[in-house]
Amino acid sequence: MQKPLILIANDDSIAAKGIKTLAEIMSKIGEVFVVAPDSHQSGMGHAITLDRPLRVNQVKDFLPNVEAYQCSGTPADCIKFGKHFLLKGRKIDLVVSGINHGSNSSISVIYSGTMSAAIEAAIEGIPAIGFSLCDFGADADFSHTEQYIVQIAQKVLQNGLPKGIALNVNFPKKSEEAIKGIKVCRQTDALYRETFQERQDPYGKKYYWMDGFLQNDDTAGGNDEDALAENYVSIVPAKFDLTDYKALDTIKEWF
Amino acid sequence: MQKPLILIANDDSIAAKGIKTLAEIMSKIGEVFVVAPDSHQSGMGHAITLDRPLRVNQVKDFLPNVEAYQCSGTPADCIKFGKHFLLKGRKIDLVVSGINHGSNSSISVIYSGTMSAAIEAAIEGIPAIGFSLCDFGADADFSHTEQYIVQIAQKVLQNGLPKGIALNVNFPKKSEEAIKGIKVCRQTDALYRETFQERQDPYGKKYYWMDGFLQNDDTAGGNDEDALAENYVSIVPAKFDLTDYKALDTIKEWF
Repeated sequence: MQKPLILIANDDSIAAKGIKTLAEIMSKIGEVFVVAPDSHQSGMGHAITLDRPLRVNQVKDFLPNVEAYQCSGTPADCIKFGKHFLLKGRKIDLVVSGINHGSNSSISVIYSGTMSAAIEAAIEGIPAIGFSLCDFGADADFSHTEQYIVQIAQKVLQNGLPKGIALNVNFPKKSEEAIKGIKVCRQTDALYRETFQERQDPYGKKYYWMDGFLQNDDTAGGNDEDALAENYVSIVPAKFDLTDYKALDTIKEWF
Repeated sequence: MQKPLILIANDDSIAAKGIKTLAEIMSKIGEVFVVAPDSHQSGMGHAITLDRPLRVNQVKDFLPNVEAYQCSGTPADCIKFGKHFLLKGRKIDLVVSGINHGSNSSISVIYSGTMSAAIEAAIEGIPAIGFSLCDFGADADFSHTEQYIVQIAQKVLQNGLPKGIALNVNFPKKSEEAIKGIKVCRQTDALYRETFQERQDPYGKKYYWMDGFLQNDDTAGGNDEDALAENYVSIVPAKFDLTDYKALDTIKEWF
């Protein structure tokens, strides 16, 4: 049987520990290509590069048996380049993105470059999964994620995914307590509360640092923040048809 | 009665004709503040600025009775700055974004900086509308949009919006034919087909221009591309809870 063709991206850049970890795991399952940003692209949302060309360079010695490229664009650009140029004419069986250094649960899915790569692949009709770890550390411990990554990737390779979605998978930070299992759940209804720190540069001009924390008032249960807090792996099926079908009728009555 | 407080952003920058047009229209309805990017931010999706501070400067003589600021960040940053710093403690009654020079119908909603500003406001619980014109020209004719912008904004000010959505409003390009009316519809299931043009810089190094066209095979009717093609204004209620509730049960059976 032919090995599945797997394309990997992330938003923490080609130099991150998370993508090397993910590529190592995936290279045991399939034929692996990596196209990842050449610099940090966290919080890039679903940005694409329209106003300038892209630079793409092969990265030698990334991993044995893994062809890896760094790209000057966004995570979504990386998928577009991988699909429409690098692997043009070949059927990509799976796109995986990550492992992100930091959570992409709850509303973070909207801001996440990791998930934009997965969603971009889903738009292209490719089964896709974004993996994120609730640990921002550059040297984060990903050792507890491997068995779940393999399990979830194999399930998706076997079954495909329903049309129009990518999976948003988040892992609890490594702790002494073992992971309890997997919970398939909904996106938590929470939001970031921002503050802006006003500072002055050495030339007397103002600038502002944006900072924030997740304010979670979602107590209805069954969401991804709950699952992670209980030491489960969370999986949310994330869609790119943003239409709120329930709201359609309300708005139709107005006009 | 007190005038409604209206915050305006866009992604084409403070210098665009579209945002000045929108601010002129809105200043007849309410007290208007503008926070817009200082440079072009098209295709920025829901990017936010995490790795550097923001510069924000007041723009004098933008319009009479309109307080306007240019910001070095993304459209979503502009809303966060407007809400949590500039207008801190005040209740914003409406956020409008645009008028975008170019369509944000169909899958473009995902890549759109214009819509990310509106959706960011919706996340904050503020009624929000993104307006876009199917005309990329810097000097596009927006004259046919005013009556609809006023009508839609007034409806939203009167009724609010269902929780969890922003309106994605697109206008046909100005033509000799009059607009037929408004259609409230779903997001078209279409995608961009990209090509990458490989070129060589003067130093012999390769670079790639990404280009694409919208491939629309959605023939099921009732979508925003159909409405625009028939010379209607399209309105899609766009949500930020990406959970695909229909897919939840399918995925749950796997684990």
